[in-house]
Amino acid sequence: MRATVLHGPKDVRLEQVPDPILHRPTDAIVRVIAACVCGSDLWGYRGVRPTPEPRRIGHELVGVVEAVGADVVGVRPGEFVIAPFALGDGTCANCRNGFPTSCVHGVMWGGRDHEGLLVDGAQAELVRVPFADANLVATPTYPADELIPSLLALSDVMGTGHHAAVSARVHAGSTVVVVGDGAVGLCAVLASRRLGATRIVAMSRHPDRQRLAREFGATDVVAERGAAGVAAVRELLGADGAEAVLECVGTRESMQQALDVTRPGGYVGYVGVPAGGPELPVGQMFGANLNVAGGIAPVRTYLPELLADVLSGAINPGRVFDLELPLADIGEAYAAMDERRAIKSLVRP
Amino acid sequence: MRATVLHGPKDVRLEQVPDPILHRPTDAIVRVIAACVCGSDLWGYRGVRPTPEPRRIGHELVGVVEAVGADVVGVRPGEFVIAPFALGDGTCANCRNGFPTSCVHGVMWGGRDHEGLLVDGAQAELVRVPFADANLVATPTYPADELIPSLLALSDVMGTGHHAAVSARVHAGSTVVVVGDGAVGLCAVLASRRLGATRIVAMSRHPDRQRLAREFGATDVVAERGAAGVAAVRELLGADGAEAVLECVGTRESMQQALDVTRPGGYVGYVGVPAGGPELPVGQMFGANLNVAGGIAPVRTYLPELLADVLSGAINPGRVFDLELPLADIGEAYAAMDERRAIKSLVRP
Repeated sequence: MRATVLHGPKDVRLEQVPDPILHRPTDAIVRVIAACVCGSDLWGYRGVRPTPEPRRIGHELVGVVEAVGADVVGVRPGEFVIAPFALGDGTCANCRNGFPTSCVHGVMWGGRDHEGLLVDGAQAELVRVPFADANLVATPTYPADELIPSLLALSDVMGTGHHAAVSARVHAGSTVVVVGDGAVGLCAVLASRRLGATRIVAMSRHPDRQRLAREFGATDVVAERGAAGVAAVRELLGADGAEAVLECVGTRESMQQALDVTRPGGYVGYVGVPAGGPELPVGQMFGANLNVAGGIAPVRTYLPELLADVLSGAINPGRVFDLELPLADIGEAYAAMDERRAIKSLVRP
Repeated sequence: MRATVLHGPKDVRLEQVPDPILHRPTDAIVRVIAACVCGSDLWGYRGVRPTPEPRRIGHELVGVVEAVGADVVGVRPGEFVIAPFALGDGTCANCRNGFPTSCVHGVMWGGRDHEGLLVDGAQAELVRVPFADANLVATPTYPADELIPSLLALSDVMGTGHHAAVSARVHAGSTVVVVGDGAVGLCAVLASRRLGATRIVAMSRHPDRQRLAREFGATDVVAERGAAGVAAVRELLGADGAEAVLECVGTRESMQQALDVTRPGGYVGYVGVPAGGPELPVGQMFGANLNVAGGIAPVRTYLPELLADVLSGAINPGRVFDLELPLADIGEAYAAMDERRAIKSLVRP
C-alpha cells in the first residue's frame, strides 16, 4: 500500500510500504476513505520538531473496516468507522475514567505500541487499528459523501475544540473568548455555540477564518493580538469579562493572551499543544483565581455525542476543510497549510 | 489602642497606635474579640518577604461592632461579626461574580486602600472595616465562647481549605489527597469530608497533625514526602488514583507532589500562596489533563454556608488552634508557630 512518510523539513513522501496485517485478535484493518493534515503535523514538517529517522505520519482518519481479529465484536467488515487520534485499550483505569489519552497501553498513529509494533500513520491507504473495539466508532449506515469531512473532523479537531469548551465549563449563557483561528479554534467556536454560549469572541486576523468563525457562531471578532488584543476584548466585554477562554494555539504568547482576558474566577480551557515548553505563571493565576483546565483531548470519549450531532446536521465541523486533494498530492496538502493557503487539508486515497 | 506592628525578621511588637475612626459612611469600627497568626504572616516574620518599613499585621478576626457609618445597614453596634481576610466593595463585577479577592476597590488588612487610607491590621484591639455591609457577617446571636475559635477559622483557613476542595470539584464519593498539614491543609480535609469525599489521604509527617487530620475525616495518612510520598499515595490508591488533590502549601515541591499524585483528568485545587514564584509545568499538565484550579480564596463568598455548619456543630474548624494567648503575648504567638510548637495561635485582646 501507499503511506505518507516524513523524512525531514519540507520533505514528506508517499511511499510503497507493506500492507498492514492483523497482528493481534483485538486488531482491525481499516481502508482509509479520508485523512487529513493536522497543525501539529507541521511541527515536524517545518523542522520545529526534529525527525531523527523517517516516520509514518497522520493521525486523523475515517474509513471502512476490511478485516477484524477474532476478539473484535464492536465493528464488522464493511462498516464505516471514525478513529480517534489517540488509541487506548479501553480497559485500563484511565480509559474507564474517560481519558484514553493516558491509557497504560496507549499509542499514537505512526508510533510504536507497548510491544514495539508499528502502528500505521493515517495518511495512507490502510491502517492496522489496535484495540479496535475500544477505538473505532461505526456510523449506523454508510454516510453520504458530503458528510465525510464532518465525520473526519471528529477524529481530532472537533473533539479537541469541544474539549477546550468542556474544560472551561462553557454552558448555556456563557461568555467565551477563543484564542486561535486554526481548525481547532474554529471548532471551539462551534462547540461553544453547541453548549449554549451566548457571546463568543473569536480572535482572528484572517478574513476567511473570521467568516467561518461567524458561521460557526462567533458573535464578535477581534483582529488584534497581544496587548492590543487583550485591550480590545476587555473593551468589548466590559467589567464582567470572559468566564471561559479557549486557548487553541499552544504558544507562550497565546496562553498569556488567554490568561489576560479571563475574568477573576474564570477558566482557561487549553488544548493547544504547548510548543517549546512554556510554563504557566502561577502568581498571576493565584492572584485572580484563573483556572487552567484541559490538555490532550480525549476525543474518543466525546465521539458518540458529537457523532449524533453531525449525523443530525446540527453541527458541520467539516467546514474547516477548505482544500481537498488526492493522497498522491500529500506534499501539496502540507505545503498549502504550511503557507497558510489552506486552513486544513483533506486527502482521499 | 494597641496593635501589632511587624518591624522586621523576628521583630513583632505590640504598640500604642491611634484608635481607628469612621472615615467613610460605609465604614464600621469593630472591637476585636479574637485574632490569630497565619502561616503567611510568618513570611514577613521570617524575613522571606522583606519589611522595608514597619507595618500593621494580622488579617483574621472576629469581634463586636462598636460603631457604624451612616450608610451601613447590614450590621449594628453590639453584633458579633466575622470578617474575611480580604475586603471588597461588594458592588463591582468581580464581587458580584463571587470573587471579592479581585475587587476593583479591594484591600487587605494592614494595607492601604485605593485612596491611600490605612486599613488596620487584625492583631489589634480595634479595626476600621471598609465597606462594612459587603464584608462583615453577623451571627444571629452572640455566640458561646467555645464557638469563638471555629468562627475565627471562617475568616481564613476554613474558607481557604473549602476553596481548595471546591476548586478541585470534590463531591460525594470523591477520592482526595491533601498536600500540607498546616491549618489550611487540615481544614481542606474537613471541607472534603463535609462535601462527601469518601477517601481522604492526608500527607502529614507530624503525629499531632495526623491525629487532627483523622479527627477531621482523613481515612489515610501518608508520612513520606516527595517521590517517596508520591509512590506511597499511588500504592495506596491503586490504578484509579486521586481525582482531586488539594495543594495547601505553595512551594514548587508541594505543587509538583500534588500534580504527581493527580490522576489523568483530575484536578489540583490549590490555595497555597505561591512562594518564590514557581511556575507550573504545562507539558506534564497537558499530557495527562491535569487541571489546576484555585487561588486566593474568596472566603467572604463561602462565609454564610460555612457559618451555618459551625453554628449547628456540623464542623469545628477551630480545632486547628492549639495555642491561645493574650494579645500582649503576640511575640510568643508568632514564635510558637515559627518553631512549629503550634499549628495555629489564637490571640485575645
